[in-house]
Amino acid sequence: MAEGFTERLGRAVAGGAAPAAVGLDPRIEALPRVLLPGGSPADRIVAFYEAVLPTIARHAPVVKPNIAFFERHGAAGYGAYETTCRLARECGLLVLGDVKRGDIGSTAEAYAVSHLGLADAVTVSPYLGSDAIEPFLQRCRADRRAIFVLVRTSNPSAADFQDLATADGRVCEVVADAVDRWGRDLVDAFGFSAVGAVVGATRPAELAGLRARMPRAWFLIPGVGIQGGRIADVGAAFDSRGLGGLVAQSRGVLQCFAPDATDWHARIDAALATFAEETRAVSGGST
Amino acid sequence: MAEGFTERLGRAVAGGAAPAAVGLDPRIEALPRVLLPGGSPADRIVAFYEAVLPTIARHAPVVKPNIAFFERHGAAGYGAYETTCRLARECGLLVLGDVKRGDIGSTAEAYAVSHLGLADAVTVSPYLGSDAIEPFLQRCRADRRAIFVLVRTSNPSAADFQDLATADGRVCEVVADAVDRWGRDLVDAFGFSAVGAVVGATRPAELAGLRARMPRAWFLIPGVGIQGGRIADVGAAFDSRGLGGLVAQSRGVLQCFAPDATDWHARIDAALATFAEETRAVSGGST
Repeated sequence: MAEGFTERLGRAVAGGAAPAAVGLDPRIEALPRVLLPGGSPADRIVAFYEAVLPTIARHAPVVKPNIAFFERHGAAGYGAYETTCRLARECGLLVLGDVKRGDIGSTAEAYAVSHLGLADAVTVSPYLGSDAIEPFLQRCRADRRAIFVLVRTSNPSAADFQDLATADGRVCEVVADAVDRWGRDLVDAFGFSAVGAVVGATRPAELAGLRARMPRAWFLIPGVGIQGGRIADVGAAFDSRGLGGLVAQSRGVLQCFAPDATDWHARIDAALATFAEETRAVSGGST
Repeated sequence: MAEGFTERLGRAVAGGAAPAAVGLDPRIEALPRVLLPGGSPADRIVAFYEAVLPTIARHAPVVKPNIAFFERHGAAGYGAYETTCRLARECGLLVLGDVKRGDIGSTAEAYAVSHLGLADAVTVSPYLGSDAIEPFLQRCRADRRAIFVLVRTSNPSAADFQDLATADGRVCEVVADAVDRWGRDLVDAFGFSAVGAVVGATRPAELAGLRARMPRAWFLIPGVGIQGGRIADVGAAFDSRGLGGLVAQSRGVLQCFAPDATDWHARIDAALATFAEETRAVSGGST
């Protein structure tokens, strides 16, 4: 069987790729004005990613399209999500769909089939417990996909419920223990499981504790840049090989220009190079 | 301003409508074979709902389309969701989109704008805390929409995280307190707020305790029928006027026939009548 998500990611990063996921959060008002100026929102989104995905692929192994910004444009926007996933895969990128789905039984099954068909991995919400995760695990087993479970998110209100103290640790720590359990029989050649965790960069002090509870999980780390987290602070997510952390950034790299700038592509290229370099530096890997 | 979701619902039920939400979970294999047999999945879904929505509107005030089963068919399926929402509203039905979205900041905003544009109310996930809910509350304030927050779901694994004990009660009880707080300034003429709660029918003993914590919340109650919950057991969700509970059922009413049955529409009509009667009976309302 072809390599799965985590093996491809591990091999890429072990081989010198940056442990970086480039977020695709299409905001129409932030797209370059020169690109398809009279086009529909969905067509403009696709034109933008068609132009930048090959550039992204030179700097990072993973893209993380956030489906909310596509759905915003209805069925055509949903189609743009599908097309963007396909184009990214054609560039050799791993696609981590930021869909945060979470539902029960046959509904979870419907989400797992559709979203792990479009993407190589997806984010999922844990609130409904194990049976809501199981249909995704089935796809991880059958097709070597991966999931990233929301554990400790990067937003200020994450504390509301995720930090509630229980007899077994905070809620997010109990979720972390479940993540480790769910991934136990899905471990790849690098020692990482197909069940990863979303752990925000805004509370770097959390990383070491959560790493201890989830030694086999890739951490998807959002919240750097505009949200206030610093790439330099997330070193505790990585192991001695420089594996285990995947830093996500969206606006900082793909909205680094004024919409009427003509040198937008060069600016993106430069921002991606900086992002990649910073993530390599913090990973402590050998490259 | 036009009446909002909760006022329309309250007025309907106070006037004798059944406190019933009919779930729209389109499964292709369960659609009547005679309807558009050569059509695409998305077209067959729309044809089915176009046929049955007027019938549903004679028995229940609310439909609850579950977007997972539409997304399953990609962009065309997403378009079928949009069309189904529109057709339902044209029949005078309130549309409660079962989307269970939950994300942070600008992403939550994108979800709120798109999904509370298509539907009159939506289900949302609480795991990310208040700031993930706030963009939905803004739409509730501005456009009289409503949300139903997952509090205690109907699936067996709901206990994994929702029942963890904390100093302020179980996690689902802390979420319930937040639901009450979030809805405080959004109370309608019936005394109900725009922030409702999803509370499964499979643990009827929970209803009274959660009702005490959320006196102003409409409860959306899934889990009756195939999941094992019984309509007759959910009386504690209702107040003395017969308001406050909204029982949801999907397969039991819209998949009550073999796909090759020719009398499928009559069977649905009969199943809807029974469902409506049972919900009226448990509500203890005057009608």
